[in-house]
Amino acid sequence: MKNYKVSIIGGTDGLGKWFAKYLKSKNFDVTVTGRDIVKGKSVEKELGVKFTNNNIEAAKEGDIVIVAVPINVTERVIREVAPHVREGCLLMDITSIKEIPSKTMEEYAKEGVTVVPTHPMFGPSTPSLMRQVVILTPSERHKKSEWFRKVKDFLEKEGARVIVIKPEEHDRIMGVVQGLTHFAYISLGATLKELGVDIKESRKYASPIYELMIYIIGRIIGQNPYLYADIQMHNPQIKHIHETFIGQCNLIKNIVERKDREEFVKLMKEAAKHFGNEAKRGVSYSDKAVFALTKEMEKLSKMKGKDIGLRHIYSGNVHYGILKDVDGDYIIIEKNGKEIKLSTSNVMVMEENELKKWKDENLPKYHRDVSILFKKDVDENVILDLLKDRFDVEIMDIYEGEKIEEGFKSVTFRVYAFENVEEKEREFLKIIENIGGKRRFK
Amino acid sequence: MKNYKVSIIGGTDGLGKWFAKYLKSKNFDVTVTGRDIVKGKSVEKELGVKFTNNNIEAAKEGDIVIVAVPINVTERVIREVAPHVREGCLLMDITSIKEIPSKTMEEYAKEGVTVVPTHPMFGPSTPSLMRQVVILTPSERHKKSEWFRKVKDFLEKEGARVIVIKPEEHDRIMGVVQGLTHFAYISLGATLKELGVDIKESRKYASPIYELMIYIIGRIIGQNPYLYADIQMHNPQIKHIHETFIGQCNLIKNIVERKDREEFVKLMKEAAKHFGNEAKRGVSYSDKAVFALTKEMEKLSKMKGKDIGLRHIYSGNVHYGILKDVDGDYIIIEKNGKEIKLSTSNVMVMEENELKKWKDENLPKYHRDVSILFKKDVDENVILDLLKDRFDVEIMDIYEGEKIEEGFKSVTFRVYAFENVEEKEREFLKIIENIGGKRRFK
Repeated sequence: MKNYKVSIIGGTDGLGKWFAKYLKSKNFDVTVTGRDIVKGKSVEKELGVKFTNNNIEAAKEGDIVIVAVPINVTERVIREVAPHVREGCLLMDITSIKEIPSKTMEEYAKEGVTVVPTHPMFGPSTPSLMRQVVILTPSERHKKSEWFRKVKDFLEKEGARVIVIKPEEHDRIMGVVQGLTHFAYISLGATLKELGVDIKESRKYASPIYELMIYIIGRIIGQNPYLYADIQMHNPQIKHIHETFIGQCNLIKNIVERKDREEFVKLMKEAAKHFGNEAKRGVSYSDKAVFALTKEMEKLSKMKGKDIGLRHIYSGNVHYGILKDVDGDYIIIEKNGKEIKLSTSNVMVMEENELKKWKDENLPKYHRDVSILFKKDVDENVILDLLKDRFDVEIMDIYEGEKIEEGFKSVTFRVYAFENVEEKEREFLKIIENIGGKRRFK
Repeated sequence: MKNYKVSIIGGTDGLGKWFAKYLKSKNFDVTVTGRDIVKGKSVEKELGVKFTNNNIEAAKEGDIVIVAVPINVTERVIREVAPHVREGCLLMDITSIKEIPSKTMEEYAKEGVTVVPTHPMFGPSTPSLMRQVVILTPSERHKKSEWFRKVKDFLEKEGARVIVIKPEEHDRIMGVVQGLTHFAYISLGATLKELGVDIKESRKYASPIYELMIYIIGRIIGQNPYLYADIQMHNPQIKHIHETFIGQCNLIKNIVERKDREEFVKLMKEAAKHFGNEAKRGVSYSDKAVFALTKEMEKLSKMKGKDIGLRHIYSGNVHYGILKDVDGDYIIIEKNGKEIKLSTSNVMVMEENELKKWKDENLPKYHRDVSILFKKDVDENVILDLLKDRFDVEIMDIYEGEKIEEGFKSVTFRVYAFENVEEKEREFLKIIENIGGKRRFK
């Protein structure tokens, strides 16, 4: 697919920009459009893609045309660009609702254009498609097309979990999965504001579940509010969902007010019964999520004074140094004699082998070559293999010529170290002398 | 504190039973009470504690008396037992509300009794006090007592995070931390039931945040509904909190209905502003929780065919075997030729060193002793140290007597293996022969 021209309508922002960057990194020929020329030029430079503020021109040029504008203008923009997509080409959108865009694209695209309406279920902070859910809602006709197969294969090869359903079904499910979820958490966020709860202070008293709830509210209310408004406002199912939720809140409030213990228990039990096995799963999975977060803190508290690698969860940047101090909110490391304070929530502790690999690739390495005499019948590969458990070492040369004592061979090792290479060499020689080797040159 | 007699009123169930078990394991002399004699006898046997169905007798005997009955009968039981607690002794309760029990204990206990009302913020599935929050609400007078200091010291030594506040302040904060949290998630659970959402199916389309929400709902509605009813019904703050939440839901519902995009954005931004830095924290922390869960799946998918240890998150039991297959819900391992299917949500993958330790302590181990001749100037500890990277090995004996070739010494190693000890021995000898050693007996 790599030679295709991709035009992303509204690709200077949000998820459109994310796809521009991603597809560019996969060597597609990417053009983005947007109304703001200054921003467009800046994105052009940042991502190394082309920019035009002419949607119709971009639609004409693209082999693949992706509409990535906000939900509230999606319908209008599809009407504008769809008729200009060339026959034999592919038209997609990446809007969070699917019924309206699917219908509009089918209606306005030419006969020979394949339409694959798409909903990537992730935001622009996601590092890759790996394990992300992508929903496709093509019509029966387009489901049989070559383009559809190509899109699906590409996404799956990139690690995405692809789901194919009807657009109406999509909107029904998303009314719950996104609509209800956002609605509840935004309402909770607004409630905590109304009640004047000091969030940071309240976390001190927190059960782990309250803490998780606070994280999720914080996450949702910190996102682009226009997107969240549009998700609520353009899904025809949402009114019924809101009413059902508020109805249940009022029902439970009344039960509590009249202290009807048995009725409360009945309601909770019925909900649990509906969840079935999922309720049990909920207990252990949320425990696992909580365990995972506290486990890292425990691990950290044991690593004080040791060298540590911390990887930023979004940028991927690594901070490497000696761990000086940890508390719930901050990690302090020492790097070249300076202290650096990092926010615990932004970094993950690198595992040992991950850190080793990073050091190999990023830190300056020093080395020493040492020639060692071994008896001729010794297998230097067995020795190397054993030493590798302890040293970063390789064999550079083996020599059995005249200058060597009868019955011996000279093996030249190269020993690497990130610092203190002399000490490393001494340590190496001490072991060598105990395992039948002797220095060729003293 | 170990010699104290502890009487737990209502200690045959729930958190009371949890404390009975915990304190027994810390060598306290524990008595539990309960109305159900059959259950009491069974707990007596299970935990190795004493049981009586006479609350007053237990209150008279205990140096420390802990009221651990359900919230709805706490006040009544305190009135019953508090007057019988001996002077110089300690009276506590572990109810989730604090204003009413604190007042009642102060009123009904004798002058010389110390009162320390307590709210352990965890459930009976918690493995230990480590990192758990425990709230204490003693009066100013009791805060200066010896007993109070002892309780606080004990909890902190056990790893708990102790918070000391006024009972009214506790109930105000818990109205939010527990009351609002439970209310929202129970309402969500009831809503999903009302809407007829197939939970398992819906998870497929899930954004990670929806999945986390489902886990938390599942967790909460799966708990003891009477406890949750009582937490809602006995907190005087809860009515105002319910009304505020439902008010915000209605407000947002109306904004969505009239498609007032700017008003929605304003509301969401104001909530985000109230959260301040906590909103950012929310994004990265919930990402970390989600990463942590998916990271384990990725780790697992790379371990197929290898040996693996899975620890049950509650019982601590270990399943050890060869990893055959993994999907989102199940892990299949082969153990002694039989396949075992484990629920992913119930187990955590053990880290390498954790598994090694477990194997050392639990699997039958075989060994071979081999005597090796080394030159006298060789340091056998350097050799042992190097071999330990690769083998489970120790030195049993060093011998330099007559029977040994001049200039040599005999070092006897013991090599351990969980299986194939002969192969391990061959591997060991191959290395030994290349590092200057030779077998004493062939």
